[in-house]
Amino acid sequence: MRIISINREFGSGGRELGRRLAETIGFDYYDRTIIEYIARECGMEDKYIEHVLDKGAWHSASLVYGNSFSFFSSSYNVPTDILVVQTKVLQDIARKGRDCVIVGRSADTILEEYGPLKIFVYADDESKLRRCMQYRKDGEPESEQQMLKYIHKIDAQRVRTKEMISGKTWGKRDHYHLMINTSGRAVEDLATALAEYIRVWFRA
Amino acid sequence: MRIISINREFGSGGRELGRRLAETIGFDYYDRTIIEYIARECGMEDKYIEHVLDKGAWHSASLVYGNSFSFFSSSYNVPTDILVVQTKVLQDIARKGRDCVIVGRSADTILEEYGPLKIFVYADDESKLRRCMQYRKDGEPESEQQMLKYIHKIDAQRVRTKEMISGKTWGKRDHYHLMINTSGRAVEDLATALAEYIRVWFRA
Repeated sequence: MRIISINREFGSGGRELGRRLAETIGFDYYDRTIIEYIARECGMEDKYIEHVLDKGAWHSASLVYGNSFSFFSSSYNVPTDILVVQTKVLQDIARKGRDCVIVGRSADTILEEYGPLKIFVYADDESKLRRCMQYRKDGEPESEQQMLKYIHKIDAQRVRTKEMISGKTWGKRDHYHLMINTSGRAVEDLATALAEYIRVWFRA
Repeated sequence: MRIISINREFGSGGRELGRRLAETIGFDYYDRTIIEYIARECGMEDKYIEHVLDKGAWHSASLVYGNSFSFFSSSYNVPTDILVVQTKVLQDIARKGRDCVIVGRSADTILEEYGPLKIFVYADDESKLRRCMQYRKDGEPESEQQMLKYIHKIDAQRVRTKEMISGKTWGKRDHYHLMINTSGRAVEDLATALAEYIRVWFRA
């Protein structure tokens, strides 16, 4: 079984790259589905799990944007149960023994024993901003200036999560096998190029 | 014309990767030859040029290892003429209009206008040390402990050179399109994988 883990800067297109890569090379693909598995296991809502894990509500309420999630704002304790369930869900996926691409979810660290190919995807602010404004979701900032702050805050949170879970630095090259800059390139093309790279990587 | 520039950590195998890549995709290849061009142009010896540019004699004498190059130790001025000639030599290469891979020599910065594909090659200390001990040259440290210090010193010098020439940080992901970790992998296989990646990159 071969596992490819993808860490990515928010707005870099890393998720799309992972999805297209998985399609191209015929691997299973996981990203947001894992949130649903965790939510089911915990008997909680997806939205809650997502905000605890992704928006760093367990870490610092200052990251939560706007008022819609202010119910977290007084909660500074780490809901470790959710982290434990996340580990269990990832282990379950690995135990299936099927080739897969996993975006985010600390899969690179949690599934380290399976020797994942670790990829980091990033881009410059201009590209990330363009992408985030284009695919803007409800509740996300409307102005470019605020959106850029939001992008940097989410990435800062990812740095903190990685450090807490693994003691490693998110985005630091030592931790990855390959780092890909998507700035100004079509993610579709990069996925094709990466698929070719990976075919050789796993054959070697 | 397509230019691929390779920056690399000392001992990471980046030079070999560049050479094999160039062979595989049929690009011209430059690394140490550029030193010879500069030496000829300046009417100086290769060894002097190499030590000025690579070992940072123009920057800090503290980098010079052992006694063999102690004639630099009192020279703290930057021989800017040599940097000017380096730029000229690189511009001449670019003006030939032929596809090429250039390892080191600040080609990524000096030939920025040609839109080079910028690659950074790195590895963990263990891999770099193994490689450096295996290909150890005269004058280089004999003990592993000293060799590791030497590796880190050369890289520290590359950081300083990059900052002086471009104001950018050597090895910082923002500056590169692709970063490749060679730890524990055969450079030959990585070159094949990279060649596939690059074929798609330039086709897109």
